[in-house]
Amino acid sequence: MINKLTIIGVGLIGGSLARALKRAQVCTEIVGCGRNALELQSAVHMQVIDRYETDPATAVRDADVIVVAVHLGVVEAVLRQIAAHVKPGAVLTDVGSVKLSVIEAARAAFGEVPANFVPGHPIAGAEKKGVAASQATLFEHARVVLTPLATTQRRALATVRALWEATGAEVVEMDARQHDETLAATSHLPHLLAYTLMDMLARRDKESELLNYAAGGLRDVTRIAASEPQMWHDISLANRDALVPLLDEFGADLHRLADALREGNSARIKSIFMRAKVARDRLYKKTTP
Amino acid sequence: MINKLTIIGVGLIGGSLARALKRAQVCTEIVGCGRNALELQSAVHMQVIDRYETDPATAVRDADVIVVAVHLGVVEAVLRQIAAHVKPGAVLTDVGSVKLSVIEAARAAFGEVPANFVPGHPIAGAEKKGVAASQATLFEHARVVLTPLATTQRRALATVRALWEATGAEVVEMDARQHDETLAATSHLPHLLAYTLMDMLARRDKESELLNYAAGGLRDVTRIAASEPQMWHDISLANRDALVPLLDEFGADLHRLADALREGNSARIKSIFMRAKVARDRLYKKTTP
Repeated sequence: MINKLTIIGVGLIGGSLARALKRAQVCTEIVGCGRNALELQSAVHMQVIDRYETDPATAVRDADVIVVAVHLGVVEAVLRQIAAHVKPGAVLTDVGSVKLSVIEAARAAFGEVPANFVPGHPIAGAEKKGVAASQATLFEHARVVLTPLATTQRRALATVRALWEATGAEVVEMDARQHDETLAATSHLPHLLAYTLMDMLARRDKESELLNYAAGGLRDVTRIAASEPQMWHDISLANRDALVPLLDEFGADLHRLADALREGNSARIKSIFMRAKVARDRLYKKTTP
Repeated sequence: MINKLTIIGVGLIGGSLARALKRAQVCTEIVGCGRNALELQSAVHMQVIDRYETDPATAVRDADVIVVAVHLGVVEAVLRQIAAHVKPGAVLTDVGSVKLSVIEAARAAFGEVPANFVPGHPIAGAEKKGVAASQATLFEHARVVLTPLATTQRRALATVRALWEATGAEVVEMDARQHDETLAATSHLPHLLAYTLMDMLARRDKESELLNYAAGGLRDVTRIAASEPQMWHDISLANRDALVPLLDEFGADLHRLADALREGNSARIKSIFMRAKVARDRLYKKTTP
């Protein structure tokens, strides 16, 4: 049982974690912290959190577990604000989509990466944002990746693992760099492609009623282009070391496909589409398309 | 009332059209034609068509309306087979996703584009193929684009329009070139991006369990990579004049985004994502994400 758990950033992820932990009854008290008092009041009203603070230093005082669930771009600033106020023995974790950048932020804020800090990333989300969209079931059957360092305390790691398992998530451990490269390919790159396509079509749409002729394929491909721009700006920049080579590789693949079309190279075109279909069918064979 | 309607190619589109027309009771007899007698027998068994022929020349004899619903790659061959057997006064149409190439195929097969030929394209589909996946409701509220030429008979155009309206579709007319450029942007390009991404990830997946860390975003972006490779090979090649410039433009946009990430150009990254989100929200404001 955790006596006091503080969540800094009570949005979709922070709010859903609070709801899931309340449902699992593993904390005596959940304190929310954020900059928007009205949002936090509504979180209390919805019984997502028990009470709130707007000052991170005050919010983390006496907390046994602290979860930083803010945008990647402000993680370091938040860690600096709480650095001197974390109770000895408290466990610190985060939910950022990029792990190396969060580890760097922790090193910058604390002087070194604290042994009680367990970097984490729940692979779950939605286009909707804010505590109003939060749900206790968001992490059920989702993967949560923890990327402990060699210096991370085993006790802290066990605490964070138990926390996520209480939400119904499947917890795995991975090297931070491997996490960032994996997520760059399976999540960050697809988002950049969706944003780029939608931006390009919107530009053309100024002169035509192009988008009136969009079928279901476009709707699916661009769904994640409705994601929050600030959050994806932060993720893209934080993970640019892994992302830029992938963008280059994708660009080269696209260039080769354009060449195959120019040359009328049927065999090459068919083999690309075929390999893709086989991979897609294998990837989602157990779920609906 | 149409006495005899022949559909050459009884797959998802041809089969769904047959079902919709039967439901609307606008034809006395619907004859299916294809190369696979077993498939056609099953189409008769499912009451999608009334009877079948495997020879196109025989199938179109005495038909009042002929719908060519085969892959783009074999349209010209089919038109050549039926050219000498189409009854004078019969109306001929097709369902191909690219219109200029079908018009060229008609010119090649008939010597000139017949005045009774009305190029058409129902913007509807699914990843599943074959008559087993066909449904009478596939075209309800879908757009059907007709691209008549200056020489197209008004009576033939009116017949094809009425046919599609009987299925519940909304019929619009458009210049063939404009159709091909519009669909290249809103449908064909998204398919090529999905195929390219899935192929690229599959290549990396040989060395890692990358795809185990795929979230919902990847599932949506790559859904259409499960589409039929042969069909999309045909479409891509048939529309390459419109598609290749779009692939180049997308590649250039992606390159600029990679540059912005390299330079840490926050303002540019945010403005791309922002414009994309605004366009996506506007595009689908009336429907679910």
